[in-house]
Amino acid sequence: MRPSGRAPDALRTVSLEPGVARHAEGSCLIRMGLTEVLCTASVEGRVPPFLRNSGQGWVTAEYGMLPRATHTRSDREAARGKQSGRTQEIQRLIGRSLRAVTDLKAMGEMTITLDCDVLTADGGTRCASITGAWVALHLAFEHCRASNIMTANPLRDQVAAISCGIWEGAPVLDLDYAEDSKADADTNFVLTGQGGIVEVQGTAEGAPFTEADLTALMQLAKKGTGELFAAQRKAIGG
Amino acid sequence: MRPSGRAPDALRTVSLEPGVARHAEGSCLIRMGLTEVLCTASVEGRVPPFLRNSGQGWVTAEYGMLPRATHTRSDREAARGKQSGRTQEIQRLIGRSLRAVTDLKAMGEMTITLDCDVLTADGGTRCASITGAWVALHLAFEHCRASNIMTANPLRDQVAAISCGIWEGAPVLDLDYAEDSKADADTNFVLTGQGGIVEVQGTAEGAPFTEADLTALMQLAKKGTGELFAAQRKAIGG
Amino acid sequence: MRPSGRAPDALRTVSLEPGVARHAEGSCLIRMGLTEVLCTASVEGRVPPFLRNSGQGWVTAEYGMLPRATHTRSDREAARGKQSGRTQEIQRLIGRSLRAVTDLKAMGEMTITLDCDVLTADGGTRCASITGAWVALHLAFEHCRASNIMTANPLRDQVAAISCGIWEGAPVLDLDYAEDSKADADTNFVLTGQGGIVEVQGTAEGAPFTEADLTALMQLAKKGTGELFAAQRKAIGG
Amino acid sequence: MRPSGRAPDALRTVSLEPGVARHAEGSCLIRMGLTEVLCTASVEGRVPPFLRNSGQGWVTAEYGMLPRATHTRSDREAARGKQSGRTQEIQRLIGRSLRAVTDLKAMGEMTITLDCDVLTADGGTRCASITGAWVALHLAFEHCRASNIMTANPLRDQVAAISCGIWEGAPVLDLDYAEDSKADADTNFVLTGQGGIVEVQGTAEGAPFTEADLTALMQLAKKGTGELFAAQRKAIGG
Amino acid sequence: MRPSGRAPDALRTVSLEPGVARHAEGSCLIRMGLTEVLCTASVEGRVPPFLRNSGQGWVTAEYGMLPRATHTRSDREAARGKQSGRTQEIQRLIGRSLRAVTDLKAMGEMTITLDCDVLTADGGTRCASITGAWVALHLAFEHCRASNIMTANPLRDQVAAISCGIWEGAPVLDLDYAEDSKADADTNFVLTGQGGIVEVQGTAEGAPFTEADLTALMQLAKKGTGELFAAQRKAIGG
Amino acid sequence: MRPSGRAPDALRTVSLEPGVARHAEGSCLIRMGLTEVLCTASVEGRVPPFLRNSGQGWVTAEYGMLPRATHTRSDREAARGKQSGRTQEIQRLIGRSLRAVTDLKAMGEMTITLDCDVLTADGGTRCASITGAWVALHLAFEHCRASNIMTANPLRDQVAAISCGIWEGAPVLDLDYAEDSKADADTNFVLTGQGGIVEVQGTAEGAPFTEADLTALMQLAKKGTGELFAAQRKAIGG
Repeated sequence: MRPSGRAPDALRTVSLEPGVARHAEGSCLIRMGLTEVLCTASVEGRVPPFLRNSGQGWVTAEYGMLPRATHTRSDREAARGKQSGRTQEIQRLIGRSLRAVTDLKAMGEMTITLDCDVLTADGGTRCASITGAWVALHLAFEHCRASNIMTANPLRDQVAAISCGIWEGAPVLDLDYAEDSKADADTNFVLTGQGGIVEVQGTAEGAPFTEADLTALMQLAKKGTGELFAAQRKAIGG
Repeated sequence: MRPSGRAPDALRTVSLEPGVARHAEGSCLIRMGLTEVLCTASVEGRVPPFLRNSGQGWVTAEYGMLPRATHTRSDREAARGKQSGRTQEIQRLIGRSLRAVTDLKAMGEMTITLDCDVLTADGGTRCASITGAWVALHLAFEHCRASNIMTANPLRDQVAAISCGIWEGAPVLDLDYAEDSKADADTNFVLTGQGGIVEVQGTAEGAPFTEADLTALMQLAKKGTGELFAAQRKAIGG
Repeated sequence: MRPSGRAPDALRTVSLEPGVARHAEGSCLIRMGLTEVLCTASVEGRVPPFLRNSGQGWVTAEYGMLPRATHTRSDREAARGKQSGRTQEIQRLIGRSLRAVTDLKAMGEMTITLDCDVLTADGGTRCASITGAWVALHLAFEHCRASNIMTANPLRDQVAAISCGIWEGAPVLDLDYAEDSKADADTNFVLTGQGGIVEVQGTAEGAPFTEADLTALMQLAKKGTGELFAAQRKAIGG
Repeated sequence: MRPSGRAPDALRTVSLEPGVARHAEGSCLIRMGLTEVLCTASVEGRVPPFLRNSGQGWVTAEYGMLPRATHTRSDREAARGKQSGRTQEIQRLIGRSLRAVTDLKAMGEMTITLDCDVLTADGGTRCASITGAWVALHLAFEHCRASNIMTANPLRDQVAAISCGIWEGAPVLDLDYAEDSKADADTNFVLTGQGGIVEVQGTAEGAPFTEADLTALMQLAKKGTGELFAAQRKAIGG
Repeated sequence: MRPSGRAPDALRTVSLEPGVARHAEGSCLIRMGLTEVLCTASVEGRVPPFLRNSGQGWVTAEYGMLPRATHTRSDREAARGKQSGRTQEIQRLIGRSLRAVTDLKAMGEMTITLDCDVLTADGGTRCASITGAWVALHLAFEHCRASNIMTANPLRDQVAAISCGIWEGAPVLDLDYAEDSKADADTNFVLTGQGGIVEVQGTAEGAPFTEADLTALMQLAKKGTGELFAAQRKAIGG
Repeated sequence: MRPSGRAPDALRTVSLEPGVARHAEGSCLIRMGLTEVLCTASVEGRVPPFLRNSGQGWVTAEYGMLPRATHTRSDREAARGKQSGRTQEIQRLIGRSLRAVTDLKAMGEMTITLDCDVLTADGGTRCASITGAWVALHLAFEHCRASNIMTANPLRDQVAAISCGIWEGAPVLDLDYAEDSKADADTNFVLTGQGGIVEVQGTAEGAPFTEADLTALMQLAKKGTGELFAAQRKAIGG
């Protein structure tokens, strides 16, 4: 029995609340169990230097955690004067994942920045950020379409992410913090609505894992993201 | 008529929601109209170097704004690598205001850090932070008392803050963003439950203001904080 | 009797020495008792990005303290790699105070930077900086006029600042360091020659203070700045 | 035909030169085709704060690239004042990979730091760093054993890494820079001598890839690391 | 004829005013022509980590320039967030020069920090800093002796510095800014009272210079420092 | 007898290997005994802001040391977030030395950056950097000439550097680390092929040294650089 009492292939309760941020062009508050991440999408009419005059757009992400999102207070990165390696790794992952399903050329020269700020952390914050950010990004593109900045939504597919792990020898879906800190492997899958792999990141925490483990974890991830895709579609009114 | 349509001495709708942050020893989500600030209090069993072996405690604050709390996205301070002068000024003010009503000696050698993070900004965020942080601090002290770390709550009084300004020649209470950006004076009052002044910060935005203006703004602040004190008491179940 | 032996409404000996910095377009060495601040005004023919093509000028300030201006040596901010929150707060205050009496539109697109560097600190350095910087700014504008860069001096009024406090229950003017460290309130008033309030910043150091205290401190500040305005006029040869 | 002309499952010429750094306790210069990385292992008799008095050791890594290791010169990170997100991501990966095959408890309280500095970059620098660093680490442990600091080498297994990708629809092994910049997927596998997975990091560069692709890439990685393990054993004289 | 109209071997007017900084244990305001540097010596009862429990003391220096010490305003290093390479080079030179004539063992475990802040710059600021700092250091040691912290002054000799250059082919002493910016060589000599060389730093600005030039510049430096040693002795009342 | 057993005027074994860096326009690996420095020259088609539209080029240098180039591991400057004062001093020296023999006007508006990275340190790294960087710079200019970016090589002369010191009273050439740490004087000479002095930097480590010492050290430096000039010519195939 896993600590959460959930079945090996059971997600935590998922909720995707769109439009929560008053000023943002798109936003979504995602909850995966106790984990809460506020995702906002901000539209800006220019691109980074390396894309100027390319006719192409850009989607990027920043990630942060409120100091007391965690069990004990963490230092505020703004006060320390730099973002940790973990933060940078996560925000690079979110950006890549969203760009993988966006037609950047169809966007035109504009940038959308996804801010994923963790209000409460209970494991799986990077995956929740990706899943929630997709909704915020979709809404921002719809906003652009409604404002006649674009004629079509340049998202080509959905994207969502989920973590899986090995708990006492058995593959389990959607680790919460208590499970994550004791699991033998921590793997994050970023998958598309059509079943493609955008990112897979697996780390052995204790003993190395096997190819068979990887295959089993992949099956769980497919099941889990299937439910997340449904929740995303519902959130955007689809 | 002021832009918000409120009477000159009318606060925006105020709401103080205690206990919203799952992990923090004390917390409060304060809403003043559209402005929303999440205040958490974190207890740590040690003090800054200058207080070691003094037998005295410390209360301090940090302030931040989510990048898209504002109408247009602001840079993330963690990414820029430093906190702005404005941020530092505000967090110093919050810390001083709370220490003014805390018996630091009675706390013993421990630190409570108040994190005030603005989720949505519509004017008055520093004042809302102080008012909400007091509730979070009170709850954290109660938590310490319940855990037998303290025998009594070391808060000696309530403290709350409100901004007032001059709108087209007339003093008005509790400026929202639209009003603040056009007011002739921007004054913040931090007052105690017993009517004392903890901080007063007045700045002429256009023409200098007069002593009579200052007196009138002070009266508005007393009325406004009176209502905030009642809301605080309600929030802590008093 | 206050520590300095001065009457409650007595300033320290004030001296404003204009033109001390050989290279600056305007400068003033201000002494308030032992406190000594060197204020220089530097003219530059461009404005910050947010004012480009606005036809409007800018006045800004930076503040610093020599490491051994104080009783015990302080760290050099350049060596620590950042300016403290206190430094930033002070330089923002100086800048706002001077802009409040400057016709920025009449300046045209140019920037004047006031550098206020404390050579010896004995309390009241931020107030002395404002009072001295006004003289340096006036001289720099006169320099621009003499060089035919401007046809009129864009200063609309004088501005000066003074600190007041409560010493053993009684309001006193112009706190030196020994008094400041034991006073019950520390209030800084930035006033104009015509009697207007540009800034008021009051902080209760121990117990909160009352509205009556604030009124009494304001009267002292008016008297004190009256004397400073006379000294400023003498310094600019007026 | 892939750009390098190699067979899909062919590694570049691999060379592992041990002992090249005169001062280091262990070192290895690894060449994978044109890519060259100097790996040194430095032994220090203390551990990071979170391990003090734990009886356990630590293995960590830092990664750097000489400014002109690349086709066009890159900024020196020391001059820019911070390490990029990419650098931090890579050095975290190297550290995790080596710790996965080290018995940290058997080390005792000491730290070994692996410095992986890229002298010439032609793709696959992070994988080469891991493979070369394992040799440097092994030699440093042997050095500790020879100096009677340890009685046994705490390495439990070998670890090596290789990148694989999809080139025009076909899975290929060990991408060089020209291939990497045009491949459809970039996956890095960190595997142990006994066939376990320590890390898998796959990123779709263009279209998402499939589960079948992942399986095929995994097979290539097993073949490639098999050859690297043999080269490592030869380098350590095994 | 050199720009200043001085004879090739003539110093500018030198003035060394001791005791100008009220709080410092030792201080000296040095003027070399228009160049003005305020040197303060601060005594602190501890040493840097590498000297702890060595029984030995330390003498170190920091150097700064007020933003408007120069013809056009320079950025404030504290605002830029780092000290320039030039600043660091100069403060390392001042520290080395003073340590060369100090018996660090006789000091006992304490640190003296010399702060050399340029109020007005007109060439030769690093040399003036060394010459003035020696006076401040001497006075600080005398202060320690008077306070019975030391029984003897640990200075073994005087040290002073002067710049020399080649002006239109002829060696000249003590370059001011106008001369320095057009001279063909810029050499700084740090010499002791007994005629020893502590530092020599010569840089060809245009064409390389010859060994004969170096010898001629050295003679000028000896003459110049001879006069500076006399001025130092007078300043300390010797 | 000096520790290295070399005659007082004997250089260590010198080797200058040109063209070692695959991507750089010019490069040289210099070995002076155990000291090894990789020097690369990178050509970039633009100049720093202060030279824009001047028609003039720029030559600059950066210096670094691999963390384990030294006996015990040094911190990585990129990880610490800043370059030390020593690093900045050295890279400024390398840049000045090379510019002294380059006709910057003849270059046209382009920049060449010399990166000098120490792979193994055993004393004399700054001198070796200068000597090796000259070869890299020469090759980069030849590359520009071969690419028809320039019609002539803008180097006017050779430049090389060597350290000399006083060992137990006697002047000796080319100090290695063991000698350097005990020498009484450490002097670096940067000389041109035609015998001119570009830089001389002498520091007394223990007792001050005399003018006669300086002259003797200068003679050694001439002899030493003579041999280095021959090695440079050989390296460039001259």
